[in-house]
Amino acid sequence: MTGLKNNLQQADETAEWHCLADAERLAEQRLPADVWDYVAGGAGNEITMAANRAALDRIGVLPRALVDVEDCDTTCDLFGVTASMPVAVAPMAYHRLVHPAGERASAAAAARAGVPFAVSTMSSTTVEDVATAGGAVWFQLYWLRDRELVAELLGRAEDAGCTAVLLTIDVPVLGRRLRDARRAFGLPAEVHAVHLGADLHIGTVAAHTGQTFDPSLNWRDLEWIRANTSLPLVLKGVLDPRDAVRAASLGVNGIVVSNHGGRQLDGVGASAAALRAVVEQVDGRCPVLFDSGVRGGVDVLRALALGATAVLLGRPVLWGLASGGARGVDAVLRLVREELENALRLSGCPDLAAARQLTLCDHGSGRI
Amino acid sequence: MTGLKNNLQQADETAEWHCLADAERLAEQRLPADVWDYVAGGAGNEITMAANRAALDRIGVLPRALVDVEDCDTTCDLFGVTASMPVAVAPMAYHRLVHPAGERASAAAAARAGVPFAVSTMSSTTVEDVATAGGAVWFQLYWLRDRELVAELLGRAEDAGCTAVLLTIDVPVLGRRLRDARRAFGLPAEVHAVHLGADLHIGTVAAHTGQTFDPSLNWRDLEWIRANTSLPLVLKGVLDPRDAVRAASLGVNGIVVSNHGGRQLDGVGASAAALRAVVEQVDGRCPVLFDSGVRGGVDVLRALALGATAVLLGRPVLWGLASGGARGVDAVLRLVREELENALRLSGCPDLAAARQLTLCDHGSGRI
Amino acid sequence: MTGLKNNLQQADETAEWHCLADAERLAEQRLPADVWDYVAGGAGNEITMAANRAALDRIGVLPRALVDVEDCDTTCDLFGVTASMPVAVAPMAYHRLVHPAGERASAAAAARAGVPFAVSTMSSTTVEDVATAGGAVWFQLYWLRDRELVAELLGRAEDAGCTAVLLTIDVPVLGRRLRDARRAFGLPAEVHAVHLGADLHIGTVAAHTGQTFDPSLNWRDLEWIRANTSLPLVLKGVLDPRDAVRAASLGVNGIVVSNHGGRQLDGVGASAAALRAVVEQVDGRCPVLFDSGVRGGVDVLRALALGATAVLLGRPVLWGLASGGARGVDAVLRLVREELENALRLSGCPDLAAARQLTLCDHGSGRI
Amino acid sequence: MTGLKNNLQQADETAEWHCLADAERLAEQRLPADVWDYVAGGAGNEITMAANRAALDRIGVLPRALVDVEDCDTTCDLFGVTASMPVAVAPMAYHRLVHPAGERASAAAAARAGVPFAVSTMSSTTVEDVATAGGAVWFQLYWLRDRELVAELLGRAEDAGCTAVLLTIDVPVLGRRLRDARRAFGLPAEVHAVHLGADLHIGTVAAHTGQTFDPSLNWRDLEWIRANTSLPLVLKGVLDPRDAVRAASLGVNGIVVSNHGGRQLDGVGASAAALRAVVEQVDGRCPVLFDSGVRGGVDVLRALALGATAVLLGRPVLWGLASGGARGVDAVLRLVREELENALRLSGCPDLAAARQLTLCDHGSGRI
Repeated sequence: MTGLKNNLQQADETAEWHCLADAERLAEQRLPADVWDYVAGGAGNEITMAANRAALDRIGVLPRALVDVEDCDTTCDLFGVTASMPVAVAPMAYHRLVHPAGERASAAAAARAGVPFAVSTMSSTTVEDVATAGGAVWFQLYWLRDRELVAELLGRAEDAGCTAVLLTIDVPVLGRRLRDARRAFGLPAEVHAVHLGADLHIGTVAAHTGQTFDPSLNWRDLEWIRANTSLPLVLKGVLDPRDAVRAASLGVNGIVVSNHGGRQLDGVGASAAALRAVVEQVDGRCPVLFDSGVRGGVDVLRALALGATAVLLGRPVLWGLASGGARGVDAVLRLVREELENALRLSGCPDLAAARQLTLCDHGSGRI
Repeated sequence: MTGLKNNLQQADETAEWHCLADAERLAEQRLPADVWDYVAGGAGNEITMAANRAALDRIGVLPRALVDVEDCDTTCDLFGVTASMPVAVAPMAYHRLVHPAGERASAAAAARAGVPFAVSTMSSTTVEDVATAGGAVWFQLYWLRDRELVAELLGRAEDAGCTAVLLTIDVPVLGRRLRDARRAFGLPAEVHAVHLGADLHIGTVAAHTGQTFDPSLNWRDLEWIRANTSLPLVLKGVLDPRDAVRAASLGVNGIVVSNHGGRQLDGVGASAAALRAVVEQVDGRCPVLFDSGVRGGVDVLRALALGATAVLLGRPVLWGLASGGARGVDAVLRLVREELENALRLSGCPDLAAARQLTLCDHGSGRI
Repeated sequence: MTGLKNNLQQADETAEWHCLADAERLAEQRLPADVWDYVAGGAGNEITMAANRAALDRIGVLPRALVDVEDCDTTCDLFGVTASMPVAVAPMAYHRLVHPAGERASAAAAARAGVPFAVSTMSSTTVEDVATAGGAVWFQLYWLRDRELVAELLGRAEDAGCTAVLLTIDVPVLGRRLRDARRAFGLPAEVHAVHLGADLHIGTVAAHTGQTFDPSLNWRDLEWIRANTSLPLVLKGVLDPRDAVRAASLGVNGIVVSNHGGRQLDGVGASAAALRAVVEQVDGRCPVLFDSGVRGGVDVLRALALGATAVLLGRPVLWGLASGGARGVDAVLRLVREELENALRLSGCPDLAAARQLTLCDHGSGRI
Repeated sequence: MTGLKNNLQQADETAEWHCLADAERLAEQRLPADVWDYVAGGAGNEITMAANRAALDRIGVLPRALVDVEDCDTTCDLFGVTASMPVAVAPMAYHRLVHPAGERASAAAAARAGVPFAVSTMSSTTVEDVATAGGAVWFQLYWLRDRELVAELLGRAEDAGCTAVLLTIDVPVLGRRLRDARRAFGLPAEVHAVHLGADLHIGTVAAHTGQTFDPSLNWRDLEWIRANTSLPLVLKGVLDPRDAVRAASLGVNGIVVSNHGGRQLDGVGASAAALRAVVEQVDGRCPVLFDSGVRGGVDVLRALALGATAVLLGRPVLWGLASGGARGVDAVLRLVREELENALRLSGCPDLAAARQLTLCDHGSGRI
């Protein structure tokens, strides 16, 4: 009875959310402090994490005037699948850390919202189980020392119906996350990286990452990956425009400008600061997605205006899951949609292409 | 007796005001918290609202030396009417929310001060009643789904003696005002949008705006408006210089650079940051007015120095009305005039044309 | 006895001062709150006053390497008089407001320090009395409605041995100083502007300034001044480079880049932000002095590096006077000298000419 | 027993350090307030000291993608000696102020870490004793009035096996360190500058520096130094690119871009702000080292990316020594190594040359 009551309470609560920070507040209250820190924290002094937000907040858009926005088309193609909006759920490890329903709940909410869900190599639910949610699923790949396991996972992803592979390239080693280090944070017994062998997730996250991930990943390995999957291949974690150009020249199917939400190297440039140069240099040869710091529909608009095709939404999905289970994720994605539609209409954009033509100014410098 | 005593107290109090923030403080004390939040609040996280102020505060003027400023001519022509200073009362909904005397009091104070008063489509007093105040009155038009009502209102405005129509173009839908959403703010029973049918103002402001306003407004509709009024037509809410150029080419009689005081889309660039580029691109083909963040005579000077013809003064008028009724608005407009004359003299400007030739520097960057 | 003891205490205290802020703290403790506010305050919201400091603080000098700085020559010529350092006491009204010894004490300290003292038109001690201190004295002129009085004062200044006239051009009317307005600050009975008739200093400072000062001062009046004095004529309060060029072309003997310490128009650019452009445009045709925000020897170095010939030191002199009488001013000027010599040596400058060749960088932007 | 227990406690504590700030906190707790202030403080208002950090924090690196970083070679040549990483212990006076084991402990830790240790002219341990630690040792030279003593020290340094001489050029006189001045900070009886005569370290640090150091040091003196040592000569304290070019042209073996950790002239530009221009102008003619503000491995990466050959690590070494003796310094150097290797791998740099090719962006401006 109590569980049901709690559930109903949570449902009520999401109806009271007016922006994603409302979910954040609730998640912080509900989660154990160490889990909250694992989700919320960044690397080092969290300067990059703060810079991600600051770089977005200083972007001012100049709305277009007198455009009919009665209809507002937010759909977009993401690697062959039509998404209801230019948003996907970012790959994140261990959804079950924050709620027992885990990735199944998040993926179901993503499916209901019509946005792709990226299942992590470090998922606490199998890709096959996630795929049963019925929406578009992407498989996120970490480059593991066990190459046979990588091949197996790529096969499983394809068999499960995933529509893209996101190769994360910014974790050759784990970032120095001081919050976790101070707590010697480790996974609770009931949460596992189910795609990995049982022996690969003992001790702290930092320790088993070091044992499991292969820091030798390089451009030549893309061929091996190509040979082991027929899915579109997307590189996640590109920031230097020179690498974006190289990736595009090699025919990757997309790139994600990202600094892993400030969780890898503190001192890396803000993701939004790097986005425009990447888009300019890629020059349309492949889609450029964006993440790190997105906290609502206005940020989606900003990313579009900087030239992004779509954004990945990370921590806010876990906020929703932690504080309201599947209904919390529903609420988070609903808010993003409402905010995005509002932002598009108010900036005179009846579709996403219009957003990419907006003039921007810089709140921090006072100049257009 | 108490009312009279209160009135006299208020008169005393306005004599103690030395800047508009004094009126603001008093208004915040006097108004119910939800009404205060409706007046004071902006959209989203209020970053744009804060940016409006920051962009003004960072503008440093360089006074001209050794100019005879014994006389200081602050008059200017605003759409065929001579105003005593380059200021008009911005169109704002529901003055009666903050004081029972409502728009009548505000308009009477504007008339005494010699500045135009813009009556809103969402006014809580009819345009005819407002016009009895005797000063110059502009009619602000929202694009309503009920086109016959729009035509009727344009006719009534013209008949009532309005001298210009301000078409607000930045409210195809209402902004996400979190303060109001959290309170589910609705109008009290005694306050109505008297120009609209009684069935159009039930529920929250956001709800009835959505039912009433037509988001399909676009450039082609300007012809219809032109056909339905012989008054000068001013577009309010232009930020992108490309739109300003288009408007000027189409022969509109003026534009207002504005982001609706930060109340529509949080994430829009600061209004002052956009002003100069608009002025440069319009290149004198029509007057360019300015609003969003004006909090005194120095801000008027800054706007003039950026090339504006005049400014609209919004919230401060409601502060005056809320805290002192008509005498409060008198005091607010008197302060703005005193500050402006002081600012013009101290910057070596005997008239407004001189102000438009001032050199500016940027407090934020340290450069001229 | 108590007075003597206090005096000795004060002497002890100045020995404990390590920077000018130490004098400031003591002055704030010793002065009545309204006098402190009159001295410390600026116009409006004090944004310009704060910008003055911010603009100085963001200037980073790059010291020169391997220069013999055993000897450090800080002397400079200021309008025909050799000063011991590139500093003069800025003209300030009513020194007796902060200490009964008034201008006599300040001027005596300036004489001991070997720096010129500028006596104000609004001095609480006559120029003749100030001149008995024995140092170089400049006469600061406000443009009074009573032209005969102006001529008389110019004559008295010349007869008293003043070596320059500083014409203050940034007070056609008084700035809106909110601290004084809120207190309706007026002079105490025992303090007078002794150069003016007794009827000219009744009521608030703002009121009698308005009655006394002539806002019609303009370029043509310079000829009249020239005809009424043979002293070098310096324009104080120039900020726009166009005016600096005009002044230099007309043969004025110097200009002071100043915004009156942020006491006139709030919203004026930082004085230090305007300095370099003025120096560049004047191009050596006359000395360019600087004030507004100088709080120590490092600021003198910054001003020199921006091209200034010398600086005027204002409020800190009153801090010294208020907290320690003549010995307090001695201490303030001693600190400035020690700081300046230290700053010159540490930046590899054996003389002031070297300081003017320093490379600067901008702490605020991170760039050289 | 208590000593041993304390020692063991300290050892435990260093194992709990996750970044250098952990050592800083402990050092502040353990040291007497005046010693802490001597170590932690900067000159004047400590604006330059703060700017040093701000300039580093605003540098965002853009990692390179898909580089094999299994192996990460951090070795570098520093004046003929291979260091394990591009870090040396900066010359600092009086290590025994913070821990009785003094320079011997610090140098032993540096030797264990494989990084050079710079022994100061003002060392509290002789260069000969320091050299017994077995690692690479540099001798830091202040230019003393007693030229014979300088020659003697150069001879002793060479005989003791030092591999470079660092000539500090930014202390012709001591900076105005207000924390020390307020406390009249002097050395305790048991701490001496053992390289100087016993009569040279009486009274405050400022006083004996003034008596001992020769401010006439200039470019011509370099020849005398060259004639008195065969060791590589490095100029420490260069900021103006013009001086860097001159030094390189004269054949010095290296320069250190430094503002003495903000301890000399407050108002000097941030060291990191000056670095890039120096590197560009020197154009490879000699190594350019960097210090002032380095607080971890990410700062080393930033300096490398700006073109530095290596960095000097100052205060953090004293934090380690103060809070944990030799094991504290071990821990500090271990943390720097771990952070640097992590930073290099995460930025896609298998060696230091790769780090120098990184693209940078500016967190403060939002631009690449």
